[in-house]
Amino acid sequence: MAPVISPPDTTFEEEKPGWKGYIEWEKYPEKKALAHEILSKYKFSDPPEFQNRPLPDTNPVIISPRWREYHDALGIGHIVDYSWEVVQKEKPDIIHLLQFPYNGETRFEQLLKGRLTDNKYHFIRNHGGVPDINEDAFELEIGGLVNTPVKLSLKELQDPSKFTQSEVTVTLQCSGTRRVEQIKEYPGEGDELINAPWGEGAIGTATYRGVALKKVLKYAAGGVLPECKHIEFLGADTYFKKKNVYNYAVSVPYRKVKANEEVLLAWEMNGKPLPKIHGFPLRVVVTGYIGARSVKWLYKINALTEPSMGPVQRQEYLYYTTQIGKQNAKYSNGFSIQQMPVSSAILEPTDKKVIIHDGKITLRGWAYSGGGNWVERVEVSPDGGSVWYAVEVDDMTEKHYHAWRLWKIDVPIHAEGWLEFCVRTWDSSNNTEPTYVRSAWNWDLHVTSSAHRIKVYSVNKTRPATAARLKYLEENGIPFEPLTKPFEFQLEPTEEYLAKTRVYKREPES
Amino acid sequence: MAPVISPPDTTFEEEKPGWKGYIEWEKYPEKKALAHEILSKYKFSDPPEFQNRPLPDTNPVIISPRWREYHDALGIGHIVDYSWEVVQKEKPDIIHLLQFPYNGETRFEQLLKGRLTDNKYHFIRNHGGVPDINEDAFELEIGGLVNTPVKLSLKELQDPSKFTQSEVTVTLQCSGTRRVEQIKEYPGEGDELINAPWGEGAIGTATYRGVALKKVLKYAAGGVLPECKHIEFLGADTYFKKKNVYNYAVSVPYRKVKANEEVLLAWEMNGKPLPKIHGFPLRVVVTGYIGARSVKWLYKINALTEPSMGPVQRQEYLYYTTQIGKQNAKYSNGFSIQQMPVSSAILEPTDKKVIIHDGKITLRGWAYSGGGNWVERVEVSPDGGSVWYAVEVDDMTEKHYHAWRLWKIDVPIHAEGWLEFCVRTWDSSNNTEPTYVRSAWNWDLHVTSSAHRIKVYSVNKTRPATAARLKYLEENGIPFEPLTKPFEFQLEPTEEYLAKTRVYKREPES
Repeated sequence: MAPVISPPDTTFEEEKPGWKGYIEWEKYPEKKALAHEILSKYKFSDPPEFQNRPLPDTNPVIISPRWREYHDALGIGHIVDYSWEVVQKEKPDIIHLLQFPYNGETRFEQLLKGRLTDNKYHFIRNHGGVPDINEDAFELEIGGLVNTPVKLSLKELQDPSKFTQSEVTVTLQCSGTRRVEQIKEYPGEGDELINAPWGEGAIGTATYRGVALKKVLKYAAGGVLPECKHIEFLGADTYFKKKNVYNYAVSVPYRKVKANEEVLLAWEMNGKPLPKIHGFPLRVVVTGYIGARSVKWLYKINALTEPSMGPVQRQEYLYYTTQIGKQNAKYSNGFSIQQMPVSSAILEPTDKKVIIHDGKITLRGWAYSGGGNWVERVEVSPDGGSVWYAVEVDDMTEKHYHAWRLWKIDVPIHAEGWLEFCVRTWDSSNNTEPTYVRSAWNWDLHVTSSAHRIKVYSVNKTRPATAARLKYLEENGIPFEPLTKPFEFQLEPTEEYLAKTRVYKREPES
Repeated sequence: MAPVISPPDTTFEEEKPGWKGYIEWEKYPEKKALAHEILSKYKFSDPPEFQNRPLPDTNPVIISPRWREYHDALGIGHIVDYSWEVVQKEKPDIIHLLQFPYNGETRFEQLLKGRLTDNKYHFIRNHGGVPDINEDAFELEIGGLVNTPVKLSLKELQDPSKFTQSEVTVTLQCSGTRRVEQIKEYPGEGDELINAPWGEGAIGTATYRGVALKKVLKYAAGGVLPECKHIEFLGADTYFKKKNVYNYAVSVPYRKVKANEEVLLAWEMNGKPLPKIHGFPLRVVVTGYIGARSVKWLYKINALTEPSMGPVQRQEYLYYTTQIGKQNAKYSNGFSIQQMPVSSAILEPTDKKVIIHDGKITLRGWAYSGGGNWVERVEVSPDGGSVWYAVEVDDMTEKHYHAWRLWKIDVPIHAEGWLEFCVRTWDSSNNTEPTYVRSAWNWDLHVTSSAHRIKVYSVNKTRPATAARLKYLEENGIPFEPLTKPFEFQLEPTEEYLAKTRVYKREPES
């Protein structure tokens, strides 16, 4: 039962002209306290239940009235409305998994279109609403443990005489990718948030253009102080958790920024300006890491001694060992997910598909490894993990240090009926994937990296009895599917049946 | 879309006074042909689809309008109405899996009440409507390859001076028991009929009283002729298949009747007259065989050289090997299911249950073997089939040659979170069960005899962190379930969290 939110006495003003939907919280502890006081007055709707029952067959799949209520209670419901407008404009054709905060998954055929995912199709996992920022009003603030705290306009950042620009092809992935496999077998709590029931499409690849953060820190802020160990990113979106409000805040180790040009401040995606829903006008792109660190609508960078205290960094995206569950989980007994492990997925055929073939079945999918590793080999098994076939090197898209490879393989299949296919990938450090979902179960439902499995119903036309049946069906206009629907005709003429069973009787003669 | 059946020109009359709902078909080929002609005029509703989508949460679970339409087309819809009246009277409190032909499953707590299943709770798998037979009008006809074809009244059969009476405790089981496990993983076609989505409750045990068929054949019919190899049973219910009508007909080998007193003509069930829905006034009880051979409303016995030509005997209840599926199945390449294999099930706890315990979890269930074998040992694994614990002999109900044993075991459990329990039984021939559903998959979806598996969420109070969390929840009135609902409170005080994570940092120092 959704509570009725009447118009609140207090509304919270936007911080800067030209920055709609951006409310600054972190600078104003009293404002945060007031928001907490207001939110504490309400009993909001429960989070949606989707782990203990089948998912609805709708798009959006899940609507969470809670988040609408949070915004309404603070008088900022327009953020929710605007965000949905942006979704409909920028992502009209992907799977709307969660309406707000918007989580959208790329359809398999869209993923398979090529090495780079079209901006229109690239998945989205937002944590709050989409701000509407005027690029001329935009400025990036750099503070904390730097020699020279500084503010930079977008024009300054984009001035090639100030900062060398670079391009990098990066696969970003939500650590919830393939979560449905865990949910189906072993429901868990997830992040105390709404953990969207992601399938295999919470991943995408794009070429981003921008400037290396390392260079911006060095040339604009005079470098970091020796005690700086972590770099925090703040996004202009508002995040709610346990009746508190935050600006979205996470961090990466300074070593990651320093070692290579692996952390980019980007304004361009596949040769086009960043879409609003992807963080316009400026976002962070962190290679090889969980997508949650690639902060959108970036407005502030802080050099810190410790990781960000933001709840997304400290209390979420944790990986627990098997013996940690709801009964004994703490924040400190999960380890923080930063680099992503090797993983892969079969996108074609889809699960439970019936395939009529001539002795081979074609599979397609993606393979990825984070943490600075790249994909070396992809293997597919047609029997649940006993016999494996390697994808030919020519049947994979090109290697990148920080991006996936799409692959294709024709697997020889003699067997008929329900077969279990699975895929595993070997990366440049010879890591491969755990065998079963349960092999690497995490109470928090992040990182499903076991060998992805699908069931396929194989119908092998090269087998004479099968060919004869298919011919009969075709000649009589009888559909083969659905499999579960019985045929109306007799499966065998009575004379043939009797001739056979009179020779090969069920009971022995003596 | 259900077709509209207008009142037919022809109706089919009942065969004998005092036998409502019994229409004789097998004696009258022209009548069968006419019924076929009428049925062929209609396009009936499709069979219900329940294998490719979740089962509805209703009771009756599945309603199949087709069967109502078949009856209406022949002007015998009153059979359907009467059958449902009988269900409501005789089986008010079991799970109505399929409304017509009635399939009802015993609830787990009803199964566990004791060694014998109460008549009110015993499962039902009917193939047609329930006839309403006056016991004074009843007669049993014995014909075919016997020395003296004969008709016997119920009084004659029940006269102890003519036939010695006997009692036998028998477990009857639908071969569809536990079919849901197959459907969930590997949907199939089943019998070209409606294969009810049975769970673990299509099994029950009763003590039947009656006379051994062997003796009736010998003393009333002068014995069988030497060429007799099979004994056919006909039931007074009407069976529809592929637009033809039949009386329910199946057979067992004569050897089964002859070897022991294993085939009983029974009129009493657990000391009470047979309920109407169980075959009143007379049924067959075949020990160790699939329930389908224990014909209800028995009105005719035929001694034959070959198995019954009834479609239930010849075209259904077949067991196919893995490489036989919809694309190449014939009647002759499945083998007929008669004797049932060893099997067992966990009834408590139920699947996906959360169990808060002190280091042990109690499980209860049934174990059965057919074909003349009895249950010797039951073993339970708390880890999916690696470590096994045997049930103590005192924790099983008594041995019978032809009945199950109920069992109970306390399994020591240290582990927490989702655990997979499974059970396997060893019978008197040292047979045991296949490991996984897929190990013994049958396209026809009959006989699911692999080790039954459930998932249970274990919460072990003897572990200090768990006990502390549970205490906190109790003191604050916070429910532990549903598991998937996040707690509102902070899982760990910030100071404790910081103290720990400042000592044990995620990144190395160097």
